Amino acid sequence: MSKKVNGKVIDALLKPQSIAIIGASNKSGKIGNTIVQKLLEGKYGGKIYPINPKDKEILGLKAYPSILDVPEHVDGAIIAVPAEATLQVVDECGQKGVNALTVITSGFSEVGRTDLEEAMVDKAHSYGMGIMGPNIIGILSNSEQMNASFAPLLPLEGKASLVSQSGALLIALDMATFTRRVGFEKLVSIGNMSDVNFGDLVEWLDQDEKTQCIALYIEGLKKGRHFIEKCRAARKPIVALKAGISEHGAAAAASHTGSLAGAAKVYKAAFDQAGVIMADSVGNLFDRTLAFSLQPPMEGDNLLVITNGGGVGVLASDAAEKCDIPLKFAPKDVQTELKKHMPEFGSAKNPVDITGGAGVDWYYESVKYAYAHKWVDGLVVLYCETAVTDPIEIAEGIHKAITETGLGKKPVVVSFLGGERSDQAMQWLVENDIPAYDAPDKAVCVLSGLRQYAKICTMDNSPFKIYDHVNRDQALNIINKVRTEGRDALTEIEAKQVFAAYGLPVAETRLARTEDEAVELATIGGFPVVMKLVSPDILHKSDAGGVRVNVKNADDVREGFRTIVANAKAYKSDATIIGVAIQEMAPWGTEVIVGSINDPTFGPTIMFGLGGIFVEVLKDVTFRVAPVTNKQAFAMLKDITSGPILDGVRGETRRDQEALATVISYYSQMISDLANEIAETDANPVLVYGEGKGCKIVDARIILKKK
Amino acid sequence: MSKKVNGKVIDALLKPQSIAIIGASNKSGKIGNTIVQKLLEGKYGGKIYPINPKDKEILGLKAYPSILDVPEHVDGAIIAVPAEATLQVVDECGQKGVNALTVITSGFSEVGRTDLEEAMVDKAHSYGMGIMGPNIIGILSNSEQMNASFAPLLPLEGKASLVSQSGALLIALDMATFTRRVGFEKLVSIGNMSDVNFGDLVEWLDQDEKTQCIALYIEGLKKGRHFIEKCRAARKPIVALKAGISEHGAAAAASHTGSLAGAAKVYKAAFDQAGVIMADSVGNLFDRTLAFSLQPPMEGDNLLVITNGGGVGVLASDAAEKCDIPLKFAPKDVQTELKKHMPEFGSAKNPVDITGGAGVDWYYESVKYAYAHKWVDGLVVLYCETAVTDPIEIAEGIHKAITETGLGKKPVVVSFLGGERSDQAMQWLVENDIPAYDAPDKAVCVLSGLRQYAKICTMDNSPFKIYDHVNRDQALNIINKVRTEGRDALTEIEAKQVFAAYGLPVAETRLARTEDEAVELATIGGFPVVMKLVSPDILHKSDAGGVRVNVKNADDVREGFRTIVANAKAYKSDATIIGVAIQEMAPWGTEVIVGSINDPTFGPTIMFGLGGIFVEVLKDVTFRVAPVTNKQAFAMLKDITSGPILDGVRGETRRDQEALATVISYYSQMISDLANEIAETDANPVLVYGEGKGCKIVDARIILKKK
Repeated sequence: MSKKVNGKVIDALLKPQSIAIIGASNKSGKIGNTIVQKLLEGKYGGKIYPINPKDKEILGLKAYPSILDVPEHVDGAIIAVPAEATLQVVDECGQKGVNALTVITSGFSEVGRTDLEEAMVDKAHSYGMGIMGPNIIGILSNSEQMNASFAPLLPLEGKASLVSQSGALLIALDMATFTRRVGFEKLVSIGNMSDVNFGDLVEWLDQDEKTQCIALYIEGLKKGRHFIEKCRAARKPIVALKAGISEHGAAAAASHTGSLAGAAKVYKAAFDQAGVIMADSVGNLFDRTLAFSLQPPMEGDNLLVITNGGGVGVLASDAAEKCDIPLKFAPKDVQTELKKHMPEFGSAKNPVDITGGAGVDWYYESVKYAYAHKWVDGLVVLYCETAVTDPIEIAEGIHKAITETGLGKKPVVVSFLGGERSDQAMQWLVENDIPAYDAPDKAVCVLSGLRQYAKICTMDNSPFKIYDHVNRDQALNIINKVRTEGRDALTEIEAKQVFAAYGLPVAETRLARTEDEAVELATIGGFPVVMKLVSPDILHKSDAGGVRVNVKNADDVREGFRTIVANAKAYKSDATIIGVAIQEMAPWGTEVIVGSINDPTFGPTIMFGLGGIFVEVLKDVTFRVAPVTNKQAFAMLKDITSGPILDGVRGETRRDQEALATVISYYSQMISDLANEIAETDANPVLVYGEGKGCKIVDARIILKKK
Repeated sequence: MSKKVNGKVIDALLKPQSIAIIGASNKSGKIGNTIVQKLLEGKYGGKIYPINPKDKEILGLKAYPSILDVPEHVDGAIIAVPAEATLQVVDECGQKGVNALTVITSGFSEVGRTDLEEAMVDKAHSYGMGIMGPNIIGILSNSEQMNASFAPLLPLEGKASLVSQSGALLIALDMATFTRRVGFEKLVSIGNMSDVNFGDLVEWLDQDEKTQCIALYIEGLKKGRHFIEKCRAARKPIVALKAGISEHGAAAAASHTGSLAGAAKVYKAAFDQAGVIMADSVGNLFDRTLAFSLQPPMEGDNLLVITNGGGVGVLASDAAEKCDIPLKFAPKDVQTELKKHMPEFGSAKNPVDITGGAGVDWYYESVKYAYAHKWVDGLVVLYCETAVTDPIEIAEGIHKAITETGLGKKPVVVSFLGGERSDQAMQWLVENDIPAYDAPDKAVCVLSGLRQYAKICTMDNSPFKIYDHVNRDQALNIINKVRTEGRDALTEIEAKQVFAAYGLPVAETRLARTEDEAVELATIGGFPVVMKLVSPDILHKSDAGGVRVNVKNADDVREGFRTIVANAKAYKSDATIIGVAIQEMAPWGTEVIVGSINDPTFGPTIMFGLGGIFVEVLKDVTFRVAPVTNKQAFAMLKDITSGPILDGVRGETRRDQEALATVISYYSQMISDLANEIAETDANPVLVYGEGKGCKIVDARIILKKK
């Protein structure tokens, strides 16, 4: 949690002992009126103190001119005065010893008044108070019977809590809880996140015994790493809908990696690392929340589908494949037993089709047997409404079969497709703790989320161990020298020196300022060599005719030196030309790219992909917030579509993936250590050799943060 | 249409003048009882003749012992007698002069009784009758007030017609029409498709003035090409949900192409060629059907989103990007005008955020202006339920703005997110011809379908012009020779000869049976050469050590010949070794693969992809049902993710895409012409050179159909 946000602060926000409403009003339509009214309507059990400079009574409650006039201790305060008046009332709350402030008021950073917002937070912190908001609709809690908001009513009761960065959406979802039958314990409007942020709430809700599942609607995080840390530590499923995944071209990026890193990709990586399950729509957020509220994780891959309709069975099978939990045939004993509860033309494979004639008995028997069988890790029961069976009865049969076996042992999810009576049956099932959905694909999709969550629970959480045999000071010295010269891009040679300081295997490269030096270096290092322009003003050396490969003798080195310099001058007449880099000619290997950006939300973030065409045309790359352990780096190699190339294709041997993972891991420490200095980097290409033969970084780029 | 299925037949099925129900019964619960009852309940206007050998009256209607006893002409007959009794009643229907039969009865090909099914169809055809089914629930038509099925009731009235291969699903969807507020004109259960198939119904429904949109639930087509032809010819939008897209490994395939061609990919290609829009779930099928029923195609790419909530606006923007209609900023004049109908902190960009305070007036004004503006090609209006506005009023305002401007000029789709009142408002909108959805992403998704449909309407429909300067007979001679020898795989040399007969640019390759012949051929053709084993028993030459490249002189040719033969014998001691192919050494070019399968549903189907790693690891390939015109072949090059490689990457020039498209087009004629003979083919690799320099097929494989 941030310095001032602690459990006590959030207690005072989400379950306050008493509440003062500053800006309470008798004028209908005013927010300060609505909130008092909603608190009363919700039957909030704590003391309510309306604060209003003029009125003596508000909606039947004794009102006070200032919070300082309240005779008792006040736990939380809701602020609904105009923005310009907030500083004063915050100060008064501080004097009064209030623990936390719910600032409804808008007109702060969202309209550019960051100054006002910061001043408010500073003031609150000076008294040890925390702030939720500003610019929020408030906080709703069923267990506290507290509607401390201007939303019309408390949501349908349930076991999930939702934190939303959009107040408008939260109100709409609040009302939708009743029509969609997805219940919530708490709804929290988080607004501008001037103080309390998503990570804080995840940490608190993870401890809240009324909350089984944490649902988030996120537009943009403020403290990305804090969020990852708190989510990873949480013991409850977290499902998040991230809005704003459109790729706004990162055209201004100076590195290859920068141009490939869209917000969507980095958020996806961060959520994966945080163990957060992504929802892809509002509907999906509700669907998943319902399943996580009511069902345990799915501990294995064996999904069994029972259906009375071949069609919906096939649709479920398709969905299972799409969601990465493809159906397998049930074992023989399961098939034999299930065959007893269906007509001859039914199927006991998977999906298990007990046919359209299936009444409650067949459902009951087959669900009971399947749910109890050890092979089955998760169960999807489908019902296609027929003219001859009663959906309510079927629902009761399913519920009976499950509860007799022991609801909660493993996940079961239901889908009824039909009309009014099917909808009623599903509502009844949900009220009896069995999630039900109006389409087979939705049922399968949420079950795949329960499977994903089981995997998250066993995710390798071992911390990154810092490599201590790296030379951070040396790297910083190089960077500082570049800064001194007023540059913010390192030359290739400087970048390689920084890489080398972190133990990365760079192709040996030395600077020749003259033809003679070039010949000398090439002769010492051994022919053939690669020659590359060194100029802080020309980043794209190839475009400037600044690269020569496979240079075989002294004469060619001399000729190469002259040509490269001439080309560079022709390309950019005012470019500073430092010289020509003489580099060992690395033998051919599989080309990959490793790079990094310094993400505004998540900080240093590493990228990996296959090089050349794969990165240029297919953009087949993967990201991780840095640093990453060797094991996590290894997993990155498997992330990309073209990953199998590293296993050896077309007669090649397996590439040295271990060495590559080590490079990525060290690289991730480098960009973390130097996060205050480095904006973007590329190691492109990195050549990866056969097993035991390591890698070689052939070209390097480091762009510094502007200071 | 098939030989016996014509408009009159389908008229007699979907809007019969009179109906006999054979197997009608007074026994409640019997299908023959339910159908008569449902016909009466639906208030069907034509004459109903229950046929029952014993009862004189059924449900108040005069019954007849046999259809032959009915005094008047009978248009259509519904058959609900046991399977074994069908032949006789079909015969009687024929004698009576019935036009078409709706065969409800099951127990035919779906349980292996294909013989019975075929006999029934033959019998019907002998009288000129057509058959719907067997194994169906029946046919429902709102405009005929005809529920000729055992589904409980006619669906909610609407402008779409649905044909379903699953009867159970059709009943469930029938009932769901009321809860989901998606109306249908006709529901047709198509069952085993022994006679009337999807293509026939598409053709008929396209002429049906009550049907605006054709919705299909397909498990497997029987006549793939007929379906494509009828769908392409249709003038109404067709949306299809294809169940069974899971990839059943085509592991037994003998060609590379065969192993890559899953049912899902081929269906996707066929649907694209047919101009059929795919739904990806039952919900999506309904969502799209509603939009197609009520709204015109979207003629351009300019989508404008108007919203009262930033959150849902961002979600809509994300969905637009995902659905390939990314939002663009509205032009200045649009922004200036819209700015007048929102508070200062609103946004007139796109999404246009008229803010949470937006009441009916702001909605009315902004929707009216936007809908009328020529820049706007399609409009999505979002509403997030608030505490201070009334969804019904907002809906009325939106509807007024649209109708005053002229509903139907361009598509408009609405999404209300909220509770009960939002749902009511949406229902009202749908009843007033404006599709409304409960999530912003759904609204955007259906609008993208309307955009897709506009593109389908302008799709190039020019027929394939047969290339006449090809030598089909020569190709057949080669194939016949192979057949004569009892083989079903051509050698590489034979396959290349077939390719050459179709004018395809094969690398010159000749058979050397001896070392001396090998040297002679290599010398005549010129060094260097490639040497490849020729054995009908060894298809994977490389695995057998049967390939040598860049063989530079006579001595190496001799040594190569001996080694290849020795390797082959070691690899498979009983393999017939015909000799060694001596092939010109084609210069390096970009590797691509062209191939084909003979799909059980769609017949000859061509595949294209980048070669080597791209096809092996990434499986980045595209299919088309053959033949394809040059223009269609060219479009295939743009289909694949790695397609841009053909534009030239990493210093290469643009590849000769025109020559490649020509190769694909000729190739597609070859596999079409020889469809009775050829099962699978590969041209792999095909080397593609720079512009104007053409292609060269380096290796060839043809597998014949088993006969």
